[in-house]
Amino acid sequence: MKRNKSIGVFDSGFGGLSILKGIVKTLPEYDYIYLGDTARAPYGARTKETILEFTKQAVDFLFQKNCGLIIIACNSASSDALRKIQREYITKKYPGLKVLGVLIPGAEESALVTKNKKIGVIATEATVFSKSFEREFYKIDPKIKIYQRACPLLAPIVEEGQEDKDSTEIIIKDYLEFFRNKDIDTLILGCTHYGILKEKIIKNMPYKVQVVCESDVIGKKLEGYLARHLEIEKNISKNGKRVFFTTDTTTRFEKLGSKFFGKKIEVKKANLLGGVASK
Amino acid sequence: MKRNKSIGVFDSGFGGLSILKGIVKTLPEYDYIYLGDTARAPYGARTKETILEFTKQAVDFLFQKNCGLIIIACNSASSDALRKIQREYITKKYPGLKVLGVLIPGAEESALVTKNKKIGVIATEATVFSKSFEREFYKIDPKIKIYQRACPLLAPIVEEGQEDKDSTEIIIKDYLEFFRNKDIDTLILGCTHYGILKEKIIKNMPYKVQVVCESDVIGKKLEGYLARHLEIEKNISKNGKRVFFTTDTTTRFEKLGSKFFGKKIEVKKANLLGGVASK
Repeated sequence: MKRNKSIGVFDSGFGGLSILKGIVKTLPEYDYIYLGDTARAPYGARTKETILEFTKQAVDFLFQKNCGLIIIACNSASSDALRKIQREYITKKYPGLKVLGVLIPGAEESALVTKNKKIGVIATEATVFSKSFEREFYKIDPKIKIYQRACPLLAPIVEEGQEDKDSTEIIIKDYLEFFRNKDIDTLILGCTHYGILKEKIIKNMPYKVQVVCESDVIGKKLEGYLARHLEIEKNISKNGKRVFFTTDTTTRFEKLGSKFFGKKIEVKKANLLGGVASK
Repeated sequence: MKRNKSIGVFDSGFGGLSILKGIVKTLPEYDYIYLGDTARAPYGARTKETILEFTKQAVDFLFQKNCGLIIIACNSASSDALRKIQREYITKKYPGLKVLGVLIPGAEESALVTKNKKIGVIATEATVFSKSFEREFYKIDPKIKIYQRACPLLAPIVEEGQEDKDSTEIIIKDYLEFFRNKDIDTLILGCTHYGILKEKIIKNMPYKVQVVCESDVIGKKLEGYLARHLEIEKNISKNGKRVFFTTDTTTRFEKLGSKFFGKKIEVKKANLLGGVASK
């Protein structure tokens, strides 16, 4: 088979663009299609049933656009929805195609860098309540203790471009106070939006920790995955193309999206709304 | 014709329940159907095209449930989408049926109570950017000067149940600082979510003002409307029924919704997602 497929990257909004940025830094040669469901972002406070439904619609859209592999670059969707989609949905509807998440790469990297085996996680409510990080760390090393803090306002703050407000720093400080007596040596930014707040998070932690940002590790992890799965890699085209889709209007996405991706992007409208539903 | 129709109340999420509460206080005898699009709330940062699309889906759903009149209890949707829906959509697709908003009743009430004709508005970005309050006040009294402040984080704060956090008060204080030199004597809470923050808003205003909350005035306004439109009123059944629908899961809606409505509610799932789309 000729190389004619793309790598799909899906996020609820803009946050996943920082993941894509991290991926193309390591693997610039491949073709990528990004989908941001900005019309319905953020997902962090939605229930797992709704996140599953939205994520299925996104997966359908990206496979219809001829993706050979999809990265769910949204922790809220990587938590509950991903496992259900991998086990029950993809195997039946799209045999041979793969959907991966961002949660496991971040957890694996943190397990490597922690010395005292005490790891903190900040994430959305959906991710924290799903207990996905607990499950993954238990598989990696049951001795690791994790401390999770849901930060429900941080994704809306970033989606709405409020990150430089004074109140944002106060909110971050308030959330991070939770870790004061926890003695963690590593903190995972468990939501793709938080990368853009990284400096403020480091500044407002009550003590010094190593910060693991999924966008910094995802490129290497994907490189390893593709090297182990040549049956997928051999189909991905290598023209360095990037195509961006949003469910909201393209002008807003182009403006805010460039901030996350680090360069100007051109965006097309994706019609998921009332359209490609899977049921 | 027999009285067999309901009054529909639509909001992006929970905020409209405070509007419904205000309506049933004045008009308890009628039957009501509430729809909260919690799976896609809040709407305040969405573009007008997306809000229009979502609102059309909601209107379709409520008319299919045999509503004779719909109140769009969401300022973001009442701003841009409402006029388009009234003019282009309802007249063609549902002749004889009516859709009303919450923005005009709030504006009219404020115009009545202001003495110095300087009125402040706090609302979502969608509402402020739509210039709907400017337009309405210009029609009511061109001498009224209005000062608008978008408060993009307040709706997410309320949707996520964060209203008693210390950081919430800091955020409110920060937003209201805008009015310090404006000399307004009246402040409209131009988003249905803000009613739940009313005490905190009064406390954190730099000086004393009259606060106009749409949920306090909507009941009387609707009473007047129905008295003037008996061709609609005569079809609305009077069994005191209340039916609640959500697009997200019902358990979360029952829990948070009761807070807004002031009493326990039972909720059904509305399938707008990928379903009743209007195009």
